[in-house]
Amino acid sequence: MSKIRVTVWNENIHEKAEGGWADLIRSFYPNGIHNAIAEGIAADDLDVKAVSLDMPEQGLPQDLLENTDVLFWWGHCGHDKVEDALVDRIQKRILEGMGLVVLHSGHYSKIFRRMLGTHCSLRWRECGEKERVWVVDKDHPIAQGVPDSFVIPHTEMYGEPFGIPPEAHVVFMSWYEGGNVFRSGVTFQRGQGKIFYFSPGHETFPIYRQPEVLKVLGNAARWAAQTLPNAKTDCWNQDPAPEKVYSENPMDKIDTSSLHKKA
Amino acid sequence: MSKIRVTVWNENIHEKAEGGWADLIRSFYPNGIHNAIAEGIAADDLDVKAVSLDMPEQGLPQDLLENTDVLFWWGHCGHDKVEDALVDRIQKRILEGMGLVVLHSGHYSKIFRRMLGTHCSLRWRECGEKERVWVVDKDHPIAQGVPDSFVIPHTEMYGEPFGIPPEAHVVFMSWYEGGNVFRSGVTFQRGQGKIFYFSPGHETFPIYRQPEVLKVLGNAARWAAQTLPNAKTDCWNQDPAPEKVYSENPMDKIDTSSLHKKA
Amino acid sequence: MSKIRVTVWNENIHEKAEGGWADLIRSFYPNGIHNAIAEGIAADDLDVKAVSLDMPEQGLPQDLLENTDVLFWWGHCGHDKVEDALVDRIQKRILEGMGLVVLHSGHYSKIFRRMLGTHCSLRWRECGEKERVWVVDKDHPIAQGVPDSFVIPHTEMYGEPFGIPPEAHVVFMSWYEGGNVFRSGVTFQRGQGKIFYFSPGHETFPIYRQPEVLKVLGNAARWAAQTLPNAKTDCWNQDPAPEKVYSENPMDKIDTSSLHKKA
Amino acid sequence: MSKIRVTVWNENIHEKAEGGWADLIRSFYPNGIHNAIAEGIAADDLDVKAVSLDMPEQGLPQDLLENTDVLFWWGHCGHDKVEDALVDRIQKRILEGMGLVVLHSGHYSKIFRRMLGTHCSLRWRECGEKERVWVVDKDHPIAQGVPDSFVIPHTEMYGEPFGIPPEAHVVFMSWYEGGNVFRSGVTFQRGQGKIFYFSPGHETFPIYRQPEVLKVLGNAARWAAQTLPNAKTDCWNQDPAPEKVYSENPMDKIDTSSLHKKA
Repeated sequence: MSKIRVTVWNENIHEKAEGGWADLIRSFYPNGIHNAIAEGIAADDLDVKAVSLDMPEQGLPQDLLENTDVLFWWGHCGHDKVEDALVDRIQKRILEGMGLVVLHSGHYSKIFRRMLGTHCSLRWRECGEKERVWVVDKDHPIAQGVPDSFVIPHTEMYGEPFGIPPEAHVVFMSWYEGGNVFRSGVTFQRGQGKIFYFSPGHETFPIYRQPEVLKVLGNAARWAAQTLPNAKTDCWNQDPAPEKVYSENPMDKIDTSSLHKKA
Repeated sequence: MSKIRVTVWNENIHEKAEGGWADLIRSFYPNGIHNAIAEGIAADDLDVKAVSLDMPEQGLPQDLLENTDVLFWWGHCGHDKVEDALVDRIQKRILEGMGLVVLHSGHYSKIFRRMLGTHCSLRWRECGEKERVWVVDKDHPIAQGVPDSFVIPHTEMYGEPFGIPPEAHVVFMSWYEGGNVFRSGVTFQRGQGKIFYFSPGHETFPIYRQPEVLKVLGNAARWAAQTLPNAKTDCWNQDPAPEKVYSENPMDKIDTSSLHKKA
Repeated sequence: MSKIRVTVWNENIHEKAEGGWADLIRSFYPNGIHNAIAEGIAADDLDVKAVSLDMPEQGLPQDLLENTDVLFWWGHCGHDKVEDALVDRIQKRILEGMGLVVLHSGHYSKIFRRMLGTHCSLRWRECGEKERVWVVDKDHPIAQGVPDSFVIPHTEMYGEPFGIPPEAHVVFMSWYEGGNVFRSGVTFQRGQGKIFYFSPGHETFPIYRQPEVLKVLGNAARWAAQTLPNAKTDCWNQDPAPEKVYSENPMDKIDTSSLHKKA
Repeated sequence: MSKIRVTVWNENIHEKAEGGWADLIRSFYPNGIHNAIAEGIAADDLDVKAVSLDMPEQGLPQDLLENTDVLFWWGHCGHDKVEDALVDRIQKRILEGMGLVVLHSGHYSKIFRRMLGTHCSLRWRECGEKERVWVVDKDHPIAQGVPDSFVIPHTEMYGEPFGIPPEAHVVFMSWYEGGNVFRSGVTFQRGQGKIFYFSPGHETFPIYRQPEVLKVLGNAARWAAQTLPNAKTDCWNQDPAPEKVYSENPMDKIDTSSLHKKA
């Protein structure tokens, strides 16, 4: 069986910033969050690449995108820097079948909002409080091998209401010491693509070093990976009709060749 | 009770074209599809305006948009002419609570695809065949007073697979003489806004003159109308926590003021 | 406009028990939980009756059931005492259009499990901890006028995973001091009937005396109330076909009159 | 990899009846519908057993049920003969993880109605008309290798409205010559079990001899097969709380040992 081709994209901005908090981030992730995730989920059945916004073509040349089965996305302060044309190309790939795993502050990324159509807003608080993540759908492939609940010792709070479509399939829910709750792991299907959002992952805490978190991400890579050939995403004409049409066409004597031209 | 403010938007391009088919369209809709719909759903509880792409600000100045409870949308060959900034403003209004009713070839409009995130493709055929529309969810407000099934004598076929999110709530399904089927009436909730798509309405047949179709559209206006105040669509900080946080914050001694700045 | 006819059913067993905890329950609900709820949601547009298992026909004679627009259900240790034939009749009424509001330990009632088909299990803990209920779908009619979050000072914990169908529409989620989370307010549509489950309501704390809880219950009565005539719930034959059938029927020469008889 | 254990259950009543139509059924299915399906989906990765109502323990002794990964169900005139205790045991197995594939008139079986909670009614007509089955969700595993649409030359019509929960995931939709439409292939998740309903399969036509139909059924067996260990379906107490509870318990001084006893 061929390996699942995972591409982990990171804006990689905090990691290159100045200041004490940036030093702290670098102490957890010396090669950036993208490389930490790539190392953390490394396995025989995965072929993982780590890329970032500061690379040519914003890290995602078309050739790489075409050869990615599942794309991970971490962004925060650089959402606006991602070019709309790239977002268009990623969206097309997802509808064709590529998986998408959106992490933490990626809830506000162009690609996540594009795929869902909603504002994707939420409450937040940054006081280093404790988070407890609960498995809600024990039968979901992403939850296999994950304990019933696990603790993230220090986290940024993301709280309800979360501005996503109400049909979100809830896999994980989080409890926060400060009194909030959140649908912290949710899935969607859009076109042929599977989408998973997972909220833990604030940059100033070493969350992507926790084995439970990495277990979730590895499961997500396998669940979301494209397995079918690229799906068709265009309209198409179906002439002639599969069944006999007995009605007479009132338009038969009128030339409509110019009707379907773009204005 | 105040009236529901409905704005019917139409690209109004076919109606001004040259050729026999355009003459035919004008014979059905001398004032355009938008005015035909506005007249067709006129009722004491509705305050209906008809606007079009060729008007100032593409027919939807911000003031009108702010004072619209439900927006109807008919477009076909002019989708690309609608400015992205207008689509942004419409999306925001829908997420805040404005209803959206998308008609026929509007399945490919920028605003419908924006709200759903999918490609919204379908099969089509234009041979003037018969369509029979079936009520699938008899209990839905949009189906009230609509017969169990009704015939559109000549139609353009729209067939499955329809590229929308799988959670679409199916209110109507259509049968076509030529052998196809379609989820011809589907609803979605996005943010605080309600969305209804209804496929009948090809321009070269007088479909918006049929009482069953107008019954559906009038019901849709009432179902989708905004009833709540505009919803908040931004993130917000929740400090202090509603419950006491006992954990110590490892970040307390680090200045993070520059962390949340946009790159 | 005629009033919404609400019937609040309670097993009314704890209220008549012996022991200190039963005395405590009686101190909160001298006339039983059913009467407390009936009084608590009393309003001009509601016609509320309180009934209990110890009444004739287990409190729900057919005539009352036929004249109920929405049924509230509180049960705990007496689930098994409810007759299957009564459950059948309630299920039929819900599918026809009657609303159902299931409270607290009613998650394990025969009627709730009947309507959902799942086991409806959950975690629980009884240590008098604090619960904070969050509004997740601010736009839902049941959440109108309810604060963003509110506290139940002492509660029984109900925690995930909650064994309900994954499509549950989440209106409220709860946070518990002891570290758990729960989808504490969820809705379903089954046939023409609307169903709402709300978990707060443990008998040893005066939860149905809290104004926020009563606000939710009053909203739920209005949301779930039957508004359409009773729906048909049987199969029916559609002869002749609405469209002409051109195929020859291979069965035409065979007598199949005995085929559809029950064995 | 171990084989998927499929058990095909059939009431096997028509096959043993008298009359010309029963002779016809036997000409298609000399060993009964259950054996025809078992032979038709036979493959190296499947271990298929065919059982029927007239066998000991109605064909489904507990030991077989415990060792079934996916259960197929064909019934029509004998639904009432299936014992409620057996339905209880099947439901428990499904919630634990066993798959269920319900065929044709099985829409009215006890087990399908038990799992969905709805009346599962539909329109029907028996005039030997043509059916065309369309793939709606091309990406679904059950649709792999199935043509975009295929014809069943003679069928019993099953038409909308279909009385199932509105969240049904639609994989196939059918067109009927006589003018009707139907969601002919739908999936559900209940507990850990996957459920697929497929409407084609009327007994008086050799529908289970069509390769497209058998392709669908084979795919369904693989899709619905239990892959996880049996899920827990009971409530359980979680003492002590995973997080420290600071609130005082007002019940601490009261003996509540008798509170949770069944009445």
